[in-house]
Amino acid sequence: MTDYRRLRVALLGAGSVGSQVASLLRQHGDELADRAGATLELVGIAVRDVNAPREVDLPQELLTTDAKTLIVGADIVIELMGGIEPAREYLLEAINSGADVVTANKALLATHGPELFAAADQVGAQVYYEAAAAGAIPIIRPLRDSLAGDRVQRIMGIVNGTTNYILDRMDKEGAEFADVLADAQALGYAEADPTADVEGYDAAQKAAILASLAFHTTIPLESVHREGITQIDKSMMDAARKAGYVIKLLAVCERLNDDAGGESISVRVYPALVDREHPLASVHGANNAVFVQAEAAGNLMFYGAGAGGVQTASAVLGDVVSAARRHIAGGVGVGESTLANLPIVPIGHVTTRYQITLEVNDRPGVLATVAGTLSDGKVSIATVEQTVIDADDTDAATARLVIGTHKAREQDLSDTVDTLAASGVVARVVSVLRVEGD
Amino acid sequence: MTDYRRLRVALLGAGSVGSQVASLLRQHGDELADRAGATLELVGIAVRDVNAPREVDLPQELLTTDAKTLIVGADIVIELMGGIEPAREYLLEAINSGADVVTANKALLATHGPELFAAADQVGAQVYYEAAAAGAIPIIRPLRDSLAGDRVQRIMGIVNGTTNYILDRMDKEGAEFADVLADAQALGYAEADPTADVEGYDAAQKAAILASLAFHTTIPLESVHREGITQIDKSMMDAARKAGYVIKLLAVCERLNDDAGGESISVRVYPALVDREHPLASVHGANNAVFVQAEAAGNLMFYGAGAGGVQTASAVLGDVVSAARRHIAGGVGVGESTLANLPIVPIGHVTTRYQITLEVNDRPGVLATVAGTLSDGKVSIATVEQTVIDADDTDAATARLVIGTHKAREQDLSDTVDTLAASGVVARVVSVLRVEGD
Repeated sequence: MTDYRRLRVALLGAGSVGSQVASLLRQHGDELADRAGATLELVGIAVRDVNAPREVDLPQELLTTDAKTLIVGADIVIELMGGIEPAREYLLEAINSGADVVTANKALLATHGPELFAAADQVGAQVYYEAAAAGAIPIIRPLRDSLAGDRVQRIMGIVNGTTNYILDRMDKEGAEFADVLADAQALGYAEADPTADVEGYDAAQKAAILASLAFHTTIPLESVHREGITQIDKSMMDAARKAGYVIKLLAVCERLNDDAGGESISVRVYPALVDREHPLASVHGANNAVFVQAEAAGNLMFYGAGAGGVQTASAVLGDVVSAARRHIAGGVGVGESTLANLPIVPIGHVTTRYQITLEVNDRPGVLATVAGTLSDGKVSIATVEQTVIDADDTDAATARLVIGTHKAREQDLSDTVDTLAASGVVARVVSVLRVEGD
Repeated sequence: MTDYRRLRVALLGAGSVGSQVASLLRQHGDELADRAGATLELVGIAVRDVNAPREVDLPQELLTTDAKTLIVGADIVIELMGGIEPAREYLLEAINSGADVVTANKALLATHGPELFAAADQVGAQVYYEAAAAGAIPIIRPLRDSLAGDRVQRIMGIVNGTTNYILDRMDKEGAEFADVLADAQALGYAEADPTADVEGYDAAQKAAILASLAFHTTIPLESVHREGITQIDKSMMDAARKAGYVIKLLAVCERLNDDAGGESISVRVYPALVDREHPLASVHGANNAVFVQAEAAGNLMFYGAGAGGVQTASAVLGDVVSAARRHIAGGVGVGESTLANLPIVPIGHVTTRYQITLEVNDRPGVLATVAGTLSDGKVSIATVEQTVIDADDTDAATARLVIGTHKAREQDLSDTVDTLAASGVVARVVSVLRVEGD
């Protein structure tokens, strides 16, 4: 075996990803050394409790509760603890002591990314985070490097496996949200507290990371518009299916052009109607996919496992090999580019198509009133379908109106829906869903 | 605007990709400079004839027929001439004069890649070739970098747009190969001499490049087993559809394990049956997709435009920005890893599933004879469907037998089919197709 330079690798965290990283590093050490041009010596694993039960057997002598000491002298520090503190503090210490760092911590990157990148830039270190955006799917390097010569127009991502699993089962089985969620929790696809997933917080963090890379712009997490999927019910799923759509929780990152030739961006997470023929519609189960539209490259899609310990470990180890190569080769890091720093518009300025479902009083002139209100509100109608609601089930004088709009401004649309709701002819606004993926 | 260091960029070739690269470089120069940290100055474009008509208007003063002089003093040389010579000679000159080089030349890489990489390694330069394998789809960096910590088990790629376009139309329209090919030629999807595409030569070059990256092994082009799609006819398409398959020209790169724990690889290009539920089955038109199965990451797919001038230009410019960053940052290049250098097995050693379609004499004992021959040949039967061929059309004493096998060794299978063909009970071997994508 070639006699390589030894690089000291410190691992912070031994949860489902961390324990797999440790295990694969030890199992494939020789092969990774050949690829990295350096022997990757795992010098220690910082954990909260050295005696806690682990998914994978790890050598007891590598475990320590003293992360700070472990970081000192490490060439590469892998942070897989999650959470903001002390992960942030440890990573800054690692960077400032000359290490390259690898992290899968999307919450930290989405909130303190610029601070970490600036610190790395100052000392010529590099922050690697392929695992932070869509699990095992290589999306960071494609966006940062492969598409560096292109202009990304739009990203539409299914970046949260839990919600895709729930929506996919609701679509396939005609089940209700609460039932599928309970099942997903029992099967380990959803956490006991599912808020981060089902309310879109996790997807919003990933959207911020992807948009930041794609548009070379710092994206404060609070500028990401976020809606979850808890309001999606069986009837909305059924109606979507009937209309040739499927409902997916999408992270949409979009470059917008104003009339004066100025550019801005929108970053938003919400459940949207996607045409069943769109490649994103066939992303099933807990899988993720990122659909990228670029000016020159056209449409690209990246598909794979969005989560899972061993899958995510693959992305982490790819970063470790990259970090090792750079550590050996020298040269300063690539650095994060936020040079464009385009303005980020609020959700009200965004234009999409919409599908509005209303229950209206079934009497003469109602459709004219609804159409007039939409027109007054600058919302142009593309399709209308009116059906009488079954008289056995409900008041016979009620009809259901499904209106597909042309592209409309979110603020106009939402004001118009408010006007409709208060108009006296609309009994109930059943749902308002955006349609993405033209 | 920031005052960046100027990098001299020389472009060799101004065909459909080259002219787009030149145009985008000039159009988005400021933006690319921000990303690269260097001003990319296009100093000249080497062409055969400075007066030839071009798809895109290029400044006449940049055009030259003197490639050799243009290369001298360039920091980055982009080779988009195609062909082996003089492209090889020019790239070696560029590398030896200290330039980083970008090429989309799959024929050159598949035949002289190791020579170029060795030359680059010696002087610390780098060869970038994201555009060589699947057009605009970022696949080189994911394989080389993102999956560097993983072990790729198998790649199945639709890497030739022309053949996918032809097969897709044959599948959708029930058309014959020759008719669709003629149409594809008229529409510009296929060349006047379609040999490189329809006989699988283009796909074989790309398969060699992908396998070399995935398995860290030098792949001589002649070790790639290659079959084209000219023998695929309407009846095979119909039969495939009926059985729930679609026929795709696949580039398959596979890691094999022998009983003694040794590893080898197989690289092959042929039309294969793919289950209609497989993600590759929904790759339509001239699109490409690369499906990667890795030990830790699981299944990944990369999808997008496989060809086209402006699409491919996107990949080339991504490489130019990477090359510029590295040129500024210093440090030696990543280098190509061929450290594993696994043995490459001939096609006869490969195991896949097969679908064998036979016309047999419809008399007692025939099925028993066929089954016995298969069993003697170590080919295990998974499914059998026998149908009497319509008596109006043909000899009433003939039946059609469609046999799906379990995994069998190619050599055993092909010997057994020879035995069957000579057995007297088989009137005609209609088709033998491999089934990929379990």
